[in-house]
Amino acid sequence: MAKELQMANAIRALAMDAVQQANSGHPGAPMGMADIAVALWGSYLKHNPRDPHWPDRDRFVLSNGHGSMLIYALLHLTGYDLPIGELKNFRQLHSKTAGHPEVGVTPGVETTTGPLGQGLTNAVGMALAEKLLATEFNRKGHHVVDHHTYVFMGDGCLMEGISHEACALAGAWKLNKLIAVYDDNGISIDGQVTPWFIDDTPARFKAYGWHVIGPVDGHDVAAVNRAIADARISADKPTLIVAKTHIGKGSPNRANTAKAHGEALGIEEVKLTREAMGWTHEPFVVPQEVYADWDAKAKGAAAQAEWNQRFAAYTKAHPELAAEFTRRMKGELPKNFAQVAVDAAVAAHAKAETVASRKASQIALEAFTAALPEMLGGSADLTGSNLTNTKSTAPLRFDLAGDVKLGEDGNGSEDAPRRIGRHINYGVREFGMAAVMNGVALHGGYIPYGGTFLTFSDYSRNAIRMAALMKKRVIHVFTHDSIGLGEDGPTHQSIEHAASLRLIPNLDVWRPCDTAETAVAWAVALQNANRPTALLLSRQNLPYAPKAGLEDISKGAYVLAEPGEVGLNKKPQAVIIATGSEVQLALKAQEQLAAQQIAVRVVSMPSNTAFDRQSAAYKTSVLPAGIPRIAVEMGVSDGWWKYGCAAVVGIDTYGESAPANVLFKLFGFTPENVADTVRAVLSRMH
Amino acid sequence: MAKELQMANAIRALAMDAVQQANSGHPGAPMGMADIAVALWGSYLKHNPRDPHWPDRDRFVLSNGHGSMLIYALLHLTGYDLPIGELKNFRQLHSKTAGHPEVGVTPGVETTTGPLGQGLTNAVGMALAEKLLATEFNRKGHHVVDHHTYVFMGDGCLMEGISHEACALAGAWKLNKLIAVYDDNGISIDGQVTPWFIDDTPARFKAYGWHVIGPVDGHDVAAVNRAIADARISADKPTLIVAKTHIGKGSPNRANTAKAHGEALGIEEVKLTREAMGWTHEPFVVPQEVYADWDAKAKGAAAQAEWNQRFAAYTKAHPELAAEFTRRMKGELPKNFAQVAVDAAVAAHAKAETVASRKASQIALEAFTAALPEMLGGSADLTGSNLTNTKSTAPLRFDLAGDVKLGEDGNGSEDAPRRIGRHINYGVREFGMAAVMNGVALHGGYIPYGGTFLTFSDYSRNAIRMAALMKKRVIHVFTHDSIGLGEDGPTHQSIEHAASLRLIPNLDVWRPCDTAETAVAWAVALQNANRPTALLLSRQNLPYAPKAGLEDISKGAYVLAEPGEVGLNKKPQAVIIATGSEVQLALKAQEQLAAQQIAVRVVSMPSNTAFDRQSAAYKTSVLPAGIPRIAVEMGVSDGWWKYGCAAVVGIDTYGESAPANVLFKLFGFTPENVADTVRAVLSRMH
Repeated sequence: MAKELQMANAIRALAMDAVQQANSGHPGAPMGMADIAVALWGSYLKHNPRDPHWPDRDRFVLSNGHGSMLIYALLHLTGYDLPIGELKNFRQLHSKTAGHPEVGVTPGVETTTGPLGQGLTNAVGMALAEKLLATEFNRKGHHVVDHHTYVFMGDGCLMEGISHEACALAGAWKLNKLIAVYDDNGISIDGQVTPWFIDDTPARFKAYGWHVIGPVDGHDVAAVNRAIADARISADKPTLIVAKTHIGKGSPNRANTAKAHGEALGIEEVKLTREAMGWTHEPFVVPQEVYADWDAKAKGAAAQAEWNQRFAAYTKAHPELAAEFTRRMKGELPKNFAQVAVDAAVAAHAKAETVASRKASQIALEAFTAALPEMLGGSADLTGSNLTNTKSTAPLRFDLAGDVKLGEDGNGSEDAPRRIGRHINYGVREFGMAAVMNGVALHGGYIPYGGTFLTFSDYSRNAIRMAALMKKRVIHVFTHDSIGLGEDGPTHQSIEHAASLRLIPNLDVWRPCDTAETAVAWAVALQNANRPTALLLSRQNLPYAPKAGLEDISKGAYVLAEPGEVGLNKKPQAVIIATGSEVQLALKAQEQLAAQQIAVRVVSMPSNTAFDRQSAAYKTSVLPAGIPRIAVEMGVSDGWWKYGCAAVVGIDTYGESAPANVLFKLFGFTPENVADTVRAVLSRMH
Repeated sequence: MAKELQMANAIRALAMDAVQQANSGHPGAPMGMADIAVALWGSYLKHNPRDPHWPDRDRFVLSNGHGSMLIYALLHLTGYDLPIGELKNFRQLHSKTAGHPEVGVTPGVETTTGPLGQGLTNAVGMALAEKLLATEFNRKGHHVVDHHTYVFMGDGCLMEGISHEACALAGAWKLNKLIAVYDDNGISIDGQVTPWFIDDTPARFKAYGWHVIGPVDGHDVAAVNRAIADARISADKPTLIVAKTHIGKGSPNRANTAKAHGEALGIEEVKLTREAMGWTHEPFVVPQEVYADWDAKAKGAAAQAEWNQRFAAYTKAHPELAAEFTRRMKGELPKNFAQVAVDAAVAAHAKAETVASRKASQIALEAFTAALPEMLGGSADLTGSNLTNTKSTAPLRFDLAGDVKLGEDGNGSEDAPRRIGRHINYGVREFGMAAVMNGVALHGGYIPYGGTFLTFSDYSRNAIRMAALMKKRVIHVFTHDSIGLGEDGPTHQSIEHAASLRLIPNLDVWRPCDTAETAVAWAVALQNANRPTALLLSRQNLPYAPKAGLEDISKGAYVLAEPGEVGLNKKPQAVIIATGSEVQLALKAQEQLAAQQIAVRVVSMPSNTAFDRQSAAYKTSVLPAGIPRIAVEMGVSDGWWKYGCAAVVGIDTYGESAPANVLFKLFGFTPENVADTVRAVLSRMH
């Protein structure tokens, strides 16, 4: 048997055996893509199984993540720390071979995939990060950033809408080092796809400005090799390789059927497949010569050693650049970060400006983007509304040759990163933006942030969740966060969104009330190295909330004003908890109540996710037992009962189209209504 | 001035004046699309301003909904009940001219638009409904269903991923009576789109199997007229007309700039625009001759009268068909619906089967789809997992000519609707499916339902919200609703999804525990004429929960088992509230606790959204004051505190990839842990 076929059959056997052992999983895609994998991983992929984090490795993404046994087989065979015992434990608790590939769980897995279309979009983000880093850091004779991003995908990924957003961006950005291989097997879970999928995919991708190769025979390793070689010389376009394959190839009775997709072949069919393939080895046994053919350890170590030499030369020639590159790829914040953060908050406190919190965000961003060259901003076509751009972040642009355009002084220095545009016009592509940002964060070298209206977090919701699941630092700037946006009406007014984002595990949500809280929220978000953050910001102006100090803001909630602040020296009878734009209402209500000798504490809670992480002692110090609590937020009330509130001033219906001030009255967001609610609670208790 | 130009300038003047008066809104799109509107509304659109609900009217969708003044101007000018006073009140509270067009608020508005890409997708759903109804109901010489769906859209809609899903489906479905006009002005909010939008849109749409016309000059009414005429003769393809326009046309200084997009022109520029257009009339004044040119009342009334005659002839020839058509378009359920619903629940109760609730859903669907020919099902490529298909719902297919394929006996009867495939393979397009379903519901004649995994409700979330905002009966079948799906792991395991869907105002959420609750959930969903429903269903088998009766299930929560059921004749000391797959845990815990003389009531709460609508008396009868409550659900705990729970057995982290039974133990979903939690609560109270 030819060497390549043996290598491919090793994947097929491992895939069908692991799925059979687990009696769960998807054998069809690994068996169908095995020959393509031989071509890419056997001849081109630059990687070192002994160091999965080598910065200049090629990135490989399995966007059709249900075919996880493909990547597990590849990682095992090429020499990653993924012994055969892990493959035998496929899909079992705490194995390194989860049902879908998970970054951080399995060495060599670059992103968590499964929700279709997002792996492809992550890959676009990775390829963008590579291109930008290369522009910033490479120097003549020193190409320390020079790798490809490869992505495998099926028709599921290509049916998903996000594939449109991602691939249109990849075309516009001329990501020539992005190479996508489409496993064109004509089968999806519901069967032969023709009744519901008639796209001329090559024509579609050409329309995005891609280089399209094929269709080629996806079982002809030499043909796929030639296609990849062709793709790698593209100077200004990403490449799609269309590979015609047979799902479940090797299985006499399941190949080319939807039944090959998502279930074990069955003991009998596994046996027949072994026979048909001429694969005589026991389950999970791979002959040594096949291991030897697959082994990438020596080649990978040599490649990395060569790069290490080059990086040493780079370090000698450009020591500051090399140090900066190393810091950036580690994801470490600059040494002066803490000072920058304090300065930003203190400056906000000193100025005490009345501005919208989206503007407060831009003010904070001015400081942070100036100090952190790794911040890579953007907006889904709402730059002037989200206020995500700053003086330090010119628009990112590419020239006709596909190169990143440099800033005016971009060529000025050999010892500092070249100055690139750091604000991305993502177009009207919220989901794509979010998943591209995930890819940028996964690649490393940048901290991505991006803006849209809060309500359209719905569009990007699963990518936000994926960042939280993957523990990646991605920052979402969600402006126009309530009925306070006014006339645009209920389609644009967030009602359930703040509460609903707070339910996503490991997502930090901040809704600051003024410039100081916004600066602190940004600082915490940037420090959240293992967690994404959503910043919810107002369209409308908000007065500065006078405060004694700034140190407790980062804890997510703090005592903003005791009754004494409004001249009533009594212990609080009630606590008003408020967030964002409603903090001012709480303060005014406190004042009105004080005039009636009712003593109220105002707690500002910009982030309940951060507050929930505090010690029990701190929590009790902010929300003492036995004192009734009233929450005020322009959104659904449901989320507030967990703080033991006696009442919530919220909105449990959709908004209306009208000027914001009209809506505040209509929905009861007035100091009077807040004060009335407090009085009602107190009278109920007597 | 030419008549057409006068007509177009009336739109431009009304748009700029209304936006100026409100000092809020988007003049650019209405001014840019005014000439296109003259072509379509002046020459082709079949509508009767005096009866916006005439069943055979053409449907018109403004997918770029921010350009709302375009449709308000058109409705006003052509004679709808939208007097000039409403236009003067643009974007004011309770006017009929909300910031974005809202169905149900403004006569003649067919769908609520604003969230980009969804209007286009609704239009695909409308065109599909038309095609299916025509196939079912038209007879030789009696074409009572014969109208077009027109949609206007901008580059924002075309950048959104959902446009890919929608337009691929429209191509696969050969929706030849769908005509989309693309306002190709090259400008989006962030400016000239070329850096971020380089799609060759005509090539892209050809790749979807569309007929593409243009680019044509969007300011040449005759050219647009010809394009529409050409589009209307397409026999088997939807049509895209690419119309090159100038955003804000007419404004000397704002045209062709992003500044024209989303803000008032300003008093001075309004004046200059008046001069440049030669429009000498005061704000909100339109000369009588222009009104006369626009007036569509007589023509519309004649068209409808002609249709009424034809419908009378149809009624005479096919009285049963006509009655059925009328019922279906009114959205009335069949007369025997109540009996069908009762029978389904009673049958489930009698059989008391142990099946997954997704299977229970299919069992209920067998009954309902047999009785309700208007049910139009589907799945986003998970038919065999979602179990959305039934014996009555063959796959929907189209033949090469673009006609709907009929079932075997589809031609058999002249007096019953022809039998079409009623299960749609939507492909891997969750968001597209949801927004297509919204369009089908808006058109009328069908009750759409569709399935995917619960976690991927994230993808379709904003379309679910839009159905709730629009008060449309759309039913989402979300299976694999927890860690109970097992090996597929955290990317697929819902954690926050049930809680998060419950936050969407006017969305009913059901998570039934067995076959009877599932049958009732379906019945309530079908009766919810003004509300969408999400059914959350298990992958894994669930035992039947013995119950005294079925009548309280529809109230959303009910007493499932008192302590007496497990032989303990004491008053309950605690209430366990459980949903879906966790009800069995509650029952087992109840039994274990009874053995220790601890008396517990078990409340099954399949729908807290339905329960929240019940009377205070009923609520107290289920959840009596003073007895501690413990909630059990495999999802985030946050949502349960509103029921005053003392403890929640939930999951506030992501799941793991492992067999379901392993996960249940790992995360504490065992009767023992539930019983322990109850004991801990009771001991805390003493």
